[in-house]
Amino acid sequence: MDTPSLRLPAGMRDFAPRAAAARRRIAETLLGVFEGWGFSRVITPAFEYEEVLALGLGADARAAALKFVEPSTGRVVALRPDITPQIARLIATRFRDENGPVRLCYEGTVLRLERGARSQRELIQAGVELGGVPSPEGDAEVMALGAAALTAAGLGAEGFDLTIDLGHLGLMREVLSALDLPSEGSRAVRAAIGKRDPQRLDEALASLSSGRGSAGQRAVARFVRSLPELSGDPAVLVQARRAAPNQAIERAIIDLQGIVETVQGRSLPARLHVDLGEVRGFDYYTGVRFQAFVAGAAEPVLQGGRYDDLLGRYGRPSPAVGFAIDVEAAAGALEAAHAPSLLHSQFNGTSMGATLVVGPPSAALPVVAELRRAGKVAAPLLVPMSDAEITAYAARWGYRDVVNTARRPASGASRASSKSSSKSSSKKG
Amino acid sequence: MDTPSLRLPAGMRDFAPRAAAARRRIAETLLGVFEGWGFSRVITPAFEYEEVLALGLGADARAAALKFVEPSTGRVVALRPDITPQIARLIATRFRDENGPVRLCYEGTVLRLERGARSQRELIQAGVELGGVPSPEGDAEVMALGAAALTAAGLGAEGFDLTIDLGHLGLMREVLSALDLPSEGSRAVRAAIGKRDPQRLDEALASLSSGRGSAGQRAVARFVRSLPELSGDPAVLVQARRAAPNQAIERAIIDLQGIVETVQGRSLPARLHVDLGEVRGFDYYTGVRFQAFVAGAAEPVLQGGRYDDLLGRYGRPSPAVGFAIDVEAAAGALEAAHAPSLLHSQFNGTSMGATLVVGPPSAALPVVAELRRAGKVAAPLLVPMSDAEITAYAARWGYRDVVNTARRPASGASRASSKSSSKSSSKKG
Repeated sequence: MDTPSLRLPAGMRDFAPRAAAARRRIAETLLGVFEGWGFSRVITPAFEYEEVLALGLGADARAAALKFVEPSTGRVVALRPDITPQIARLIATRFRDENGPVRLCYEGTVLRLERGARSQRELIQAGVELGGVPSPEGDAEVMALGAAALTAAGLGAEGFDLTIDLGHLGLMREVLSALDLPSEGSRAVRAAIGKRDPQRLDEALASLSSGRGSAGQRAVARFVRSLPELSGDPAVLVQARRAAPNQAIERAIIDLQGIVETVQGRSLPARLHVDLGEVRGFDYYTGVRFQAFVAGAAEPVLQGGRYDDLLGRYGRPSPAVGFAIDVEAAAGALEAAHAPSLLHSQFNGTSMGATLVVGPPSAALPVVAELRRAGKVAAPLLVPMSDAEITAYAARWGYRDVVNTARRPASGASRASSKSSSKSSSKKG
Repeated sequence: MDTPSLRLPAGMRDFAPRAAAARRRIAETLLGVFEGWGFSRVITPAFEYEEVLALGLGADARAAALKFVEPSTGRVVALRPDITPQIARLIATRFRDENGPVRLCYEGTVLRLERGARSQRELIQAGVELGGVPSPEGDAEVMALGAAALTAAGLGAEGFDLTIDLGHLGLMREVLSALDLPSEGSRAVRAAIGKRDPQRLDEALASLSSGRGSAGQRAVARFVRSLPELSGDPAVLVQARRAAPNQAIERAIIDLQGIVETVQGRSLPARLHVDLGEVRGFDYYTGVRFQAFVAGAAEPVLQGGRYDDLLGRYGRPSPAVGFAIDVEAAAGALEAAHAPSLLHSQFNGTSMGATLVVGPPSAALPVVAELRRAGKVAAPLLVPMSDAEITAYAARWGYRDVVNTARRPASGASRASSKSSSKSSSKKG
């Protein structure tokens, strides 16, 4: 029934009460867990100078930022496509002198251009950053927090099969460095690994095959071809370590093994899955990269990792690890599963157990006030409606009880000013 | 200490933990009261097509919107300077068929250009819209909710002297209509009333003085000159009604009297102040306009009113009244007063009573887990630090207790995997 001229831009949307309530509940649950683990909430601005934001963005995120010209200065500003660089900037400036761990959390909206820029997307993210704690203890603390927060939001239940995928971008750096290809060739290898396309990978590695390239390069090329098999249960890391073609690659695998063991020691309510062929976020992450998946969500519900050079780009080198949860993906998974945690919001989002009070204001308002004082959700109808209309209205808006003050002694009526409330009183009780 | 190149655009800011915690607490308190009164929370997008948003904006707000070109369509989009038009659009589309009251609430960020466009400002707003309930009962319900919400946030305390200013834009419309000046003259009169400048008002009304203009026009001009005196205690409305130069103006005053009486019947925890010379929002409001002021805030903490033609602009005529609370102004007033409600957040925002657990992870993590299971806020230090550093760190971040697991029996150490936690254990207990 929307008038066409009232359409929203592609990728932007309203959340009507029920959907909004679910998203708010998820976000508040996540933030409650973050704060319970000692993370302090911060708020960062919706946009900032593109060149400042870009310091902390990978190439993909930088391209995905919506930009415009600031009217007062003519400088280019960008709507944040990600909150992590803002937190890094904040730590690097306001907490520059902090020598201990910095634990910050946030919740907010980010805006991104879709690939090909045919549309944008507005996402609600809730996330954390842990600065100052190196791998693997920092990684494990943050992954354990992510799993605990998703579990609190309802995504730890059995049917969701919460899985954390672990990759290691430090490993990928060592692999590409050892292949020592021209930058274009290096990008082609990375893309072929990312697409899990053996034919394209063979083409990208062609310059090293049939005797060309050094023995070391050819060994790394063989290792790269085996990457698709090096995914699955964390036990594959033993095999990967045996297959490591050089020491630097072996060190990266040992690092990941250490992280996996530390995480396993935390007994997370999630299955761990290792994928050494993970290349996404190559420009951004320096160590472990993790994503949480649940049944019912096509996209990961959580993405994060270690970016030990991020704070340095803002002038204050420090190890850092963090993640962001996609509240919409989490809500989508819960909705797809008809999760009980969402069902206690009624149709239009009015809290469970709300009471609609019907009758002339002089009688209805004192009853409403009494209910509210008792901590109940209550609202006066305030307009005249027939009984049938009232019943339908209460059902639409999720009122559990309807109190009709015209049909019972109006207990508190004496407190209301009859003068003030006689004007628009409903004729129909 | 900020590197100059990391500066934020003028008017944009970060909120470090303590400030962020205060703002979040205020926003959540307000939303809790709104929901307790039966208002359902909705979420609207950060930007939309300028022409759609503009339907529901007054001329000032329209000029204050930050605009840019949507990359995928070339159409102009505007970052919302106000959430009310979005709620009006939502009611007019998704709740088009609702014949009863529609109660919606929201919280979010709006962006506005400052006058002269030398800067922009990002504001956090929390507000409500009540559709379908005519004046005065709808006005009173919404004003009572505003006063209750501000009181819950701590602004009802005695020192804040919570005051609600009431004006009536319908009255101003009748005045300007009866003056019947050319549109430029009409704007000059409106500006002079708004600035409370008797000399400019005389100049603007010059065409009606010394015998020129009809007797009716001259009577209205006299009334306009008396407007500055028609402000103060609501009792001035009796005098105003006597001074009304024509029936339409008298009807508007009677309408405002009815609203004031209905509001007085609700016994709000606020002083009412009437100001018939209020002209701000002339393009927007059709009836009562109200603003709440508290000691310690230069700006109103709440602004709202009745806009009975707003939903009609989106294709679904319906009475509507609402308000938005400026969370920053509310926080500023509470901070200026060192309000106790803000003091229970420690320096860096970690919740009161948090515990920092020091020691090697194998000993510290089980203690942290135990505390968290008991509902306490707890965090492991995770990095090595000296005793003096630990004490200073705990003070900086507001930890009330420091538990050193190296100096007491590590009750739960046996549960931790010694293998996983031996890697980055701190040397210093």
